[in-house]
Amino acid sequence: MLQSKLFTKTLKTFPKDEEAINAKLLIRGGFIRKSSSGVYVYLPLALRVLDKINRIIREEMNAIGAQELLMPALVAKEYWDKSRRWHTDIAYEFKSPFGEEFALGWTHEEVISSMAAHFINSYKDLPAAVYQIQTKFRAEPRAKNGLLRGREFLMKDLYSFHADKESLDNYYQQVIAAYQKILKRLGLKARITEASGGAFTKEYTHEFQVLAPAGEDLIFYCVQCDFSQNKEIAIVQNGNRCPKCGGDIQSSSAIEVANVFKLGTRYSDAFNLAFTDEKGSRHPVVMGSYGIGPTRILATLVEVYNDPKGIIWPAAVAPYKVHLIEIRGSGTESRCKRIYNQLKKAGTEILYDDRDVSAGEKFADADLLGMSWRAVISEKTGAKVELKKRGSEKFSLISPTQLLKQLK
Amino acid sequence: MLQSKLFTKTLKTFPKDEEAINAKLLIRGGFIRKSSSGVYVYLPLALRVLDKINRIIREEMNAIGAQELLMPALVAKEYWDKSRRWHTDIAYEFKSPFGEEFALGWTHEEVISSMAAHFINSYKDLPAAVYQIQTKFRAEPRAKNGLLRGREFLMKDLYSFHADKESLDNYYQQVIAAYQKILKRLGLKARITEASGGAFTKEYTHEFQVLAPAGEDLIFYCVQCDFSQNKEIAIVQNGNRCPKCGGDIQSSSAIEVANVFKLGTRYSDAFNLAFTDEKGSRHPVVMGSYGIGPTRILATLVEVYNDPKGIIWPAAVAPYKVHLIEIRGSGTESRCKRIYNQLKKAGTEILYDDRDVSAGEKFADADLLGMSWRAVISEKTGAKVELKKRGSEKFSLISPTQLLKQLK
Repeated sequence: MLQSKLFTKTLKTFPKDEEAINAKLLIRGGFIRKSSSGVYVYLPLALRVLDKINRIIREEMNAIGAQELLMPALVAKEYWDKSRRWHTDIAYEFKSPFGEEFALGWTHEEVISSMAAHFINSYKDLPAAVYQIQTKFRAEPRAKNGLLRGREFLMKDLYSFHADKESLDNYYQQVIAAYQKILKRLGLKARITEASGGAFTKEYTHEFQVLAPAGEDLIFYCVQCDFSQNKEIAIVQNGNRCPKCGGDIQSSSAIEVANVFKLGTRYSDAFNLAFTDEKGSRHPVVMGSYGIGPTRILATLVEVYNDPKGIIWPAAVAPYKVHLIEIRGSGTESRCKRIYNQLKKAGTEILYDDRDVSAGEKFADADLLGMSWRAVISEKTGAKVELKKRGSEKFSLISPTQLLKQLK
Repeated sequence: MLQSKLFTKTLKTFPKDEEAINAKLLIRGGFIRKSSSGVYVYLPLALRVLDKINRIIREEMNAIGAQELLMPALVAKEYWDKSRRWHTDIAYEFKSPFGEEFALGWTHEEVISSMAAHFINSYKDLPAAVYQIQTKFRAEPRAKNGLLRGREFLMKDLYSFHADKESLDNYYQQVIAAYQKILKRLGLKARITEASGGAFTKEYTHEFQVLAPAGEDLIFYCVQCDFSQNKEIAIVQNGNRCPKCGGDIQSSSAIEVANVFKLGTRYSDAFNLAFTDEKGSRHPVVMGSYGIGPTRILATLVEVYNDPKGIIWPAAVAPYKVHLIEIRGSGTESRCKRIYNQLKKAGTEILYDDRDVSAGEKFADADLLGMSWRAVISEKTGAKVELKKRGSEKFSLISPTQLLKQLK
């Protein structure tokens, strides 16, 4: 991609109406724009990151046998009535000009349970799991944390259906393992944290918490083992001994990037979702519900991977792998174009800063935008290319052939 | 994919609450489910078709230099106030619990124009074009035509920005050519039809109309040349001579699958979207707006490609290329599994009907679901496979090696 053609521009300063690092850096870098409070436009650079996040999520969901579908945002009142979740305070509810009442979907247990009742009837239909990557809406009173708490955001929600609790427990562990893989591939370290189920369930649930100052949750975790609890339910305090291994308990702000819930039969009871077992008896289907937030992950990556100069994208999600910088001089343009075309042909994702602006501005933008590699061509580099990894101070001067080999 | 694992089931009969062929066949085939009037769930089979439609659209949009982004569904009242489109009768409008007023985006000229004003400032920034594939909402009074007129649907909307009308006219033709390519790749024949611009513009616009009984539009077209006009503005009637070539004028119902609008400066005026030319003068940006509907295309394909037995998907969008049918008998399972695994390994999209149901039910479902090829393995076929194209009556009995070669 030619940077001169990119439908975004970096800003010289941070936006004044944002407090969160993720929103400040993403807006300044031209990744997103605020449309209204808590509502954002994803510009081409951010959409590339989101697509990569979504692809990784899809791969790991498909790997555990989940099938993708797409549910609507308009969820009629009759669904929420059945589960007694009409007039939930986080829902945008409204009446259409023709009298139908809807809530914009902030979750989809109701729709999926109602629909699954048409496809699940026998023990032979179980277990089953379906997911979607879809836009959710929540009426947040004050959206001040950028993409970490949006009023409109992307969610991957997965629902599983089982004949008994044992099957659910088994799949629950598979989803936990899949979420761990997803987060590892995305470069995020998350603590699996016990938490209360909120409006969803009375059982404890598990949250995937990434330690970060911007996080809205407070967790208490053991520095030695995997013990971790959300403040809401924590039985330990800062400085306590871990009940599991005796190690030190510490506290930290954390961002909840994913969660897993055992729903039991709450929704299958409400929507007559039942199956006939081998002996002919009917039983309610046992359900699980699992969420991971692509737009929140995008924000979390920025919160975790930045320095005073800008974003440092993990390689798996960088919008482009390499940012080619031309410092204009005799012969630089043709050399840049040659390398740009060779890398493109080799399938390497490359952003080429062909703009007629100063070297300082180009370097500053390259740091702000945070692609994994910066390749500089100037009169000074001669026939070679100066290559540097974002976040590192080490330069190497290599031939175009070596560059192609290294970045392929 | 193993059909026994597919999270959908075909129905024995057509749904009673649907009138349109597209909804009847798609629901009976387990492609979609109605969530509420005009609102549908896209099940795994339909999502595969939609993904293929979207991929083709993206390829052709990228080929004309358009960049993908993603705008929100929550569009604040202030945007519509500026363009005087608040209280449009097709909008779902509502007030949040905190007093903000929104309309669910039924189009995005407002958001894109407002945002483009931050990125377009000089003649050097023009021309530019951006698009999104995103969920739109329209408060349809009576949604009776299945996916052809949904209250929630997918839209690919493209917006272009120009320094002058000449540049717009040029790009307008490029988009028309791109839309023609998209529809051709999808197997649809569309007539480019003159129409009024409705709420969008006072100029004539162009619609891509696919002739079909289910179409809600009436068009008058020439059987000899490309003359075609929407009833709203038609200067000819059935049986007239074509004003362009003298050929016969006929009328037909038609489905509008895409449209192109020259917006001029209506939205750039409203949102202060202007640029400085080479001489330092400011001018409003000249805009175009172009839509093509992936979910409506899905429905149109079903309306056009069906027979009394079911759907006949064009090869480019069939959920799976081949439907492997096992008629249970001695040795059939191992032969089916071998071919299934070989085809999967070769990258061929295959649905394997491994269910324990009658041959008649399997054949009926294969016709209903409409994959391009049906491959049958039974005791009767011996070491060979019976291959048949959906919609054709011609069978061939070929070896597994030939099958692999033909379907790769």
